[in-house]
Amino acid sequence: MRIKLLLTGNELMNGDIVDSNSAMVAQRFAAHGWTIREKRTIGDDRQLLIDTLGAMARDCDVLLVNGGLGPTVDDLTAEALASAAGVAIAEQPQALAHLEQWSTQRGLVLNAANRKQALLPAGCDIIPNPVGTAVGFALDLHGCRVMCTPGVPSELERMLDGSIVPELVQRFGAGQTKLIKIGLFGIGESALQQLISDRIASWPASVELGFRASFPVLELKLASHGADGERAIETLLPQLEPLLAEYRVDGGSLGACVVDLLQRRGLRITTAESCTGGLIASQITTIAGASNVFDAGFVTYSNAMKIDMVGVDAATLERDGAVSKTTVLQMARGALDRSGADLAIAISGIAGPSGGSDDKPVGTVWFAWGGRDDLRTACYELGGRNRQGIQQYSAAIALDLMRRKLLDIDGEPNYLRTKRRG
Amino acid sequence: MRIKLLLTGNELMNGDIVDSNSAMVAQRFAAHGWTIREKRTIGDDRQLLIDTLGAMARDCDVLLVNGGLGPTVDDLTAEALASAAGVAIAEQPQALAHLEQWSTQRGLVLNAANRKQALLPAGCDIIPNPVGTAVGFALDLHGCRVMCTPGVPSELERMLDGSIVPELVQRFGAGQTKLIKIGLFGIGESALQQLISDRIASWPASVELGFRASFPVLELKLASHGADGERAIETLLPQLEPLLAEYRVDGGSLGACVVDLLQRRGLRITTAESCTGGLIASQITTIAGASNVFDAGFVTYSNAMKIDMVGVDAATLERDGAVSKTTVLQMARGALDRSGADLAIAISGIAGPSGGSDDKPVGTVWFAWGGRDDLRTACYELGGRNRQGIQQYSAAIALDLMRRKLLDIDGEPNYLRTKRRG
Repeated sequence: MRIKLLLTGNELMNGDIVDSNSAMVAQRFAAHGWTIREKRTIGDDRQLLIDTLGAMARDCDVLLVNGGLGPTVDDLTAEALASAAGVAIAEQPQALAHLEQWSTQRGLVLNAANRKQALLPAGCDIIPNPVGTAVGFALDLHGCRVMCTPGVPSELERMLDGSIVPELVQRFGAGQTKLIKIGLFGIGESALQQLISDRIASWPASVELGFRASFPVLELKLASHGADGERAIETLLPQLEPLLAEYRVDGGSLGACVVDLLQRRGLRITTAESCTGGLIASQITTIAGASNVFDAGFVTYSNAMKIDMVGVDAATLERDGAVSKTTVLQMARGALDRSGADLAIAISGIAGPSGGSDDKPVGTVWFAWGGRDDLRTACYELGGRNRQGIQQYSAAIALDLMRRKLLDIDGEPNYLRTKRRG
Repeated sequence: MRIKLLLTGNELMNGDIVDSNSAMVAQRFAAHGWTIREKRTIGDDRQLLIDTLGAMARDCDVLLVNGGLGPTVDDLTAEALASAAGVAIAEQPQALAHLEQWSTQRGLVLNAANRKQALLPAGCDIIPNPVGTAVGFALDLHGCRVMCTPGVPSELERMLDGSIVPELVQRFGAGQTKLIKIGLFGIGESALQQLISDRIASWPASVELGFRASFPVLELKLASHGADGERAIETLLPQLEPLLAEYRVDGGSLGACVVDLLQRRGLRITTAESCTGGLIASQITTIAGASNVFDAGFVTYSNAMKIDMVGVDAATLERDGAVSKTTVLQMARGALDRSGADLAIAISGIAGPSGGSDDKPVGTVWFAWGGRDDLRTACYELGGRNRQGIQQYSAAIALDLMRRKLLDIDGEPNYLRTKRRG
């Protein structure tokens, strides 16, 4: 099935809105093995809309149009589609009945602006909208099924699931698709591509390899269509898994992955954070079930509170500074003592923009992690990022070091080797 | 100037990625009075890319292409543009020098995949990329300036500001545009629109009103072109500002706004967080200069740690539970005592998905905020959201309540009235 997508609305052209509707449509379609060939977005311009509808409907089975169904003068989809198809525009009884019922239920009186939403191309089929005033509608144009939907995401969603996808399955049938997603941390897209090229002798043509970088996790995707593709994935996975094991982040985030590992091992964790200021604790506690593994986090931002809350030695701070091996070790030990947790992450660094020196430039971050008897430490230089970037990356590294410890992955991770400073 | 935008990449077609780049481009261009006429998005399909480049370049002064500059085989922009323009593809010394410098700085060896990023259309102009491997490039096609940029948002951003917008200003001149953005919290788009309609007698035609919702802050935008528009904005602002004062969030986030208010008043704040698990502390400490107003945050997730870290009374927890007025009051007092701060935020609630009861359903959140002698409390029901949504909204409310306190805005905010439970 050849599918295209046309989005309309000035708000999509001037940067006021980030379009999430087309991703929603694509995901729904991908689940049935349908891919969108082309997507165009234009503003509320009558002639451009008419021309674009005509141009896109050629060489196409389905054209999904999103937006421009509202009650105001800049909502032009119905009249543009009627014009492109050379049909009149007329009040559709089914659409009017929907509007009347909608208003009555809410104790409102139908006004002229509302009634405009019942003026649709003659001969169109109505697509019901259970959650909004604007009904959708479908019309054939140059042999293409043009399906018009409202821009409000919740209304589009109901229409896709309730009417559009079922109609398309009936008309065109659904492809059989298998999709596997694997979250990874500590390897970049090109290094991963290289690793796969080096180590997998022949990649099956029926399996599509894709990547999605969503900081800090990189998602690897395997997609296949049909029974052959499914078998190919089954053969491929056992070859792929050992290559990925070191980097694998299950559960959608480093926090989720660490919480799950702790839960399965019956261990509890605590945090003592300076430069990340509570970010690591919040990434742990955002996971449902965090209370099974986490009791307390210490945000020890000032030196005085490092002494007071987690028992760092004043003389240590005086001698080595807050960003030092001895300080993070004492922070970790203090957090372990005071929380009774089995494992701790402690972190102290210079997130900037100020506070750096020649000796400890912005981006210098000390980590301590582990249990009371096997605390490890490292200092990494994470510069070249802004304050928030250093904080986010530091939190990801801290959780990754803990993940590796829990999985008994020995040695320093590759991605940190060139950054080591202590 | 006639501008079009072409985005490429399978990840944009299959719903894996929500495109925020085109909004970024549109906003940058809007600031100069330039509007984008048409935007197309296609997957990594060589022939379709060649055809689309050719079709879009006609009737157009500038075609900005985004994506497809990476090192992998599915990155096709350079060769497709060369093909559309009928020129060869060749290794560009300036691009190669950039790649070599990039690798050397990071202690990496340039591999074949990387070198591919220096293979560009003959005769193109290089657009420098200070923050990534892929340089951009520009070539004339059918009299249109085709400018190719990488899909990584931070790289695109630097290229727009450093090279592309300056080049376009020089070539085509900039419209005189005044753009004012005002961050708001606690009022929705339609309520704000209504407020403005009710209270501003005649809105000047030369001033365009826009909104951008970026949770939790709503951004109101005023744009005008030319000298008349600028005067109209100057006249409008004094009428608008009193309406917005209550909701105004300066500095780009609630955290930034609160840190700035504290800093100007010479006050220090502390946090005692249960259900938000460090999120409020991290939103404060992500602001540069946080150390001037913040020393310590207490993530007291378990009951035992509420007792131990901030001195909540065991009998209180036994009698009233952790999600109660007495508990948050004691959390706030304990955090104030132990940190020596002037002001505290304490929060305890049920973020779900489990842990709710008839009495205290998921979404029930107790807040305490203020100084030792004027602590206030409130309980709000923030259900209808998932765990992360409840946590994010709770953190925003807590910071907003503190903002209102610091600004002496009395009374309960409108948006919380229907949610009050205690």
